[in-house]
Amino acid sequence: MSKTNPGNFFEDFQVGQVIRHATPRTVTEGDRAVYGSLYPTRFAVPSSAAFAASVGLTGPDGSGHPVEDLIAFHIAFGKTVPDVSLNAVANLGYAECRFHRPVVPGDTLSTTSEVIGLKQNSNGRSGVVYVRSTATNQRGEVALDWARWVMVHKRDTSDAGAPAPETVLPELAPAVAAADLVVPAGLDFSSYDFEAAGEPHRFDDYVVGERIDHVDGVTLTESEHQQATRLWQNTAKVHFNKEARPDGRNLVYGGHIISMARALSFNGLANAQLIAAINAGAHTAPAFAGDTVYAWSEVLDRAEVDAPGVGALRLRLVATKGRDESMTLRGEDGKYAPGVLLDLDYWALVPR
Amino acid sequence: MSKTNPGNFFEDFQVGQVIRHATPRTVTEGDRAVYGSLYPTRFAVPSSAAFAASVGLTGPDGSGHPVEDLIAFHIAFGKTVPDVSLNAVANLGYAECRFHRPVVPGDTLSTTSEVIGLKQNSNGRSGVVYVRSTATNQRGEVALDWARWVMVHKRDTSDAGAPAPETVLPELAPAVAAADLVVPAGLDFSSYDFEAAGEPHRFDDYVVGERIDHVDGVTLTESEHQQATRLWQNTAKVHFNKEARPDGRNLVYGGHIISMARALSFNGLANAQLIAAINAGAHTAPAFAGDTVYAWSEVLDRAEVDAPGVGALRLRLVATKGRDESMTLRGEDGKYAPGVLLDLDYWALVPR
Amino acid sequence: MSKTNPGNFFEDFQVGQVIRHATPRTVTEGDRAVYGSLYPTRFAVPSSAAFAASVGLTGPDGSGHPVEDLIAFHIAFGKTVPDVSLNAVANLGYAECRFHRPVVPGDTLSTTSEVIGLKQNSNGRSGVVYVRSTATNQRGEVALDWARWVMVHKRDTSDAGAPAPETVLPELAPAVAAADLVVPAGLDFSSYDFEAAGEPHRFDDYVVGERIDHVDGVTLTESEHQQATRLWQNTAKVHFNKEARPDGRNLVYGGHIISMARALSFNGLANAQLIAAINAGAHTAPAFAGDTVYAWSEVLDRAEVDAPGVGALRLRLVATKGRDESMTLRGEDGKYAPGVLLDLDYWALVPR
Repeated sequence: MSKTNPGNFFEDFQVGQVIRHATPRTVTEGDRAVYGSLYPTRFAVPSSAAFAASVGLTGPDGSGHPVEDLIAFHIAFGKTVPDVSLNAVANLGYAECRFHRPVVPGDTLSTTSEVIGLKQNSNGRSGVVYVRSTATNQRGEVALDWARWVMVHKRDTSDAGAPAPETVLPELAPAVAAADLVVPAGLDFSSYDFEAAGEPHRFDDYVVGERIDHVDGVTLTESEHQQATRLWQNTAKVHFNKEARPDGRNLVYGGHIISMARALSFNGLANAQLIAAINAGAHTAPAFAGDTVYAWSEVLDRAEVDAPGVGALRLRLVATKGRDESMTLRGEDGKYAPGVLLDLDYWALVPR
Repeated sequence: MSKTNPGNFFEDFQVGQVIRHATPRTVTEGDRAVYGSLYPTRFAVPSSAAFAASVGLTGPDGSGHPVEDLIAFHIAFGKTVPDVSLNAVANLGYAECRFHRPVVPGDTLSTTSEVIGLKQNSNGRSGVVYVRSTATNQRGEVALDWARWVMVHKRDTSDAGAPAPETVLPELAPAVAAADLVVPAGLDFSSYDFEAAGEPHRFDDYVVGERIDHVDGVTLTESEHQQATRLWQNTAKVHFNKEARPDGRNLVYGGHIISMARALSFNGLANAQLIAAINAGAHTAPAFAGDTVYAWSEVLDRAEVDAPGVGALRLRLVATKGRDESMTLRGEDGKYAPGVLLDLDYWALVPR
Repeated sequence: MSKTNPGNFFEDFQVGQVIRHATPRTVTEGDRAVYGSLYPTRFAVPSSAAFAASVGLTGPDGSGHPVEDLIAFHIAFGKTVPDVSLNAVANLGYAECRFHRPVVPGDTLSTTSEVIGLKQNSNGRSGVVYVRSTATNQRGEVALDWARWVMVHKRDTSDAGAPAPETVLPELAPAVAAADLVVPAGLDFSSYDFEAAGEPHRFDDYVVGERIDHVDGVTLTESEHQQATRLWQNTAKVHFNKEARPDGRNLVYGGHIISMARALSFNGLANAQLIAAINAGAHTAPAFAGDTVYAWSEVLDRAEVDAPGVGALRLRLVATKGRDESMTLRGEDGKYAPGVLLDLDYWALVPR
């Protein structure tokens, strides 16, 4: 019997099945530094232990300094790849992703997934698998959880006519309700230092419908996207092996675009310090080394939250290949505009 | 109103103005490792906590192990970019840079600048801004300070005929006087381990006027210079965005050349353990990925300092594109010789 | 006198000579992160402090979390390059490499070598130097030791007819005997968590002669192999300087291929958690950026060891350029098959 892992195929999933993913991973200060070498991030909380302490997020000695929320997201997500999406045709979406507590160096993250939905495609050759995944730290506390659905190949496509499993479609919220957002224990923005953070804009300065062109662009390089993806122990071969794709190009991990766009969004959203939830995410086009990535944001909603000086903005973060000063999400045909790479809907915590 | 930062233009600066730069940054062991992956550095103090302890620079448990002085320099300097040089035409020079105390993992650096000089150019379209910048740690202690001058665009070039601000030129020393060098508290080279450090050459082995060809070369890659520059949160777009320059090439951050040359200088200056001051620096030509960088040094001066076993060498560090075994700084016309990328004048602390 | 290090030539070595190599190096969590960004490693012990604690390798607070064995190997080995192999024509082999104790962040490694053999080549222009090297930590405890032989140029080839030094050939074991393997103090695999580690295969599931195709491939990039090599302070110029080779290409450090193949071997050998010894290693062909590296393994031997739940597998790890599903080591002519880059013989500790 082969000892290598072929990954799961559509037939291998049953609703209610629980998969405990391998490779627990300890987060370190090294991750913060490598992340900072790969993305132009400048958010004050993960950049500065002193700033984090000033908003209640570390001990007085600077210990317990949170890393970027997306470091936790990518690590937790990467754990699921070998079991859920090694044979994926496409990542179709995320929903209901909530960050329950900051992740700090020394935390060890493990991820477990439950299959919550299945739908075989009419061609009988693949199907959509819905999972709800939960990442916990070494104390068993939930760090983040999320739902995700992917289209997965069937192992055996010769039985395309065989009966499909019963279709089960989970109910997923179009967005995390503001009342369900988790604010980190101790967070207090009432003495927030806007000068240190880099911009004066606060909760009340943002209006629903406002769009912000983040101006800056970054040209992707081959090494950088691979280093990022490896750091999360994401093993999908299309990112690393030029022989794995007919076009001989390495596909950039979608999470690399998320992190790049989030970092670029600093310019205009410097005070969107923490990601509280990801409501939805679509990777609308592939990206490759040589592409120059820009970002723009739209304010979708605003909400008050129960923590001193803290408000929540629901934001659409759009990454584009080439700058689009018109900030057009969709064309008249309703399809994503050319150049759009990512459409991410999330909640950020900002000072009021 | 746009929420993004357009940077300051020449008209935005006034003599006496104090700018508190954003994004305090905590230094970590991760920075040391990434630095070591990007530069061929082998200086024993930042490489080894045990060696650092043997010269009085860490506690007995190895805690407080200093990072490379240039890590502190690049971080502190990077803070000033969004406010001072986002609209710079050129970095014209540095002076009077002193390192006041070693920076260790856990330190959070913040930078403040005061405008100390202004001179509008005769074309009325740009001007030179002189600032003195000070980086402090989380306890408010000065880590390093320096003066710098940059040529900055005017926002509005239609009023080229409008009166210029009064010209103020600061007095800047051509070099930090030996008596003004700060020796780190506790530094003691009297039991210095030359074998562990890699070379036998001590203070008295170097003579003024001596030149050292550091022999080794490194071919620059696209990813590496960008990772370095990002690590310092330096946001100047010419380094990252191939669409930002007419030639479609990313300009290498001048500090990348400084760090590369400093690391290459190990071969012949292995005992130049600490940088005490930077007297002057000129980036004399642009560098790009694919260029192969070499370095040579000239001993400019020698001085005794008040610490056991410690001497100071004033050195000129020259980086070149392609090796120049003749070590020629300037041609007969007085201009920098072709291939010279960097002319850096600094004080190093060495064992006597 | 030149102050730069020309390295040692064949004439500079005498049997019995002891060389204390320069540049002690403190291992940090940053090294773990950079390593994880460069290699697709997922072994649970170095990935997770919690997992390491569960097998007896860290304190209850997660302190003392071992790094990858190969991090220690590369650092310890890199120290010897400036003295032993700066003028090497070729790295001929390794033998008798044993890992005596896990290396953890905070450890400072230093390396010493003794010349144990010499043999001048019949052409009088070069010779083979055999050294036994020992890396110790800051407490003087042995971390690892190994023998190595390299072919080194003579400085002066005009005296090719001069008498050669007496030939001394050391006795080196073809493999470390199972009884000589060192098991880390405290290692206990009796409660090993196979699900967290990623595969169910244990000691008794592997049979001598079995071959495992590790399936995955990674296309090498220019930056990544250089970053890795620099991280180990390996200064051999052929890796970094495109002007140093007639073909204008940077040669990939052989250790980069070892680490890449080891990481790829996770898929089928996820439970080969620790490297106890390296019996032999041959770099059989050069590798360059753009090559896609795959790996396969062969089980060479099995042994019981004196630790709870622990067994030892002797494995041949073969890296190839391009995938070879036939897993052919040598052609009918007895020579390495085309595409073979590395033939590494080692002992791994696995759960029983």
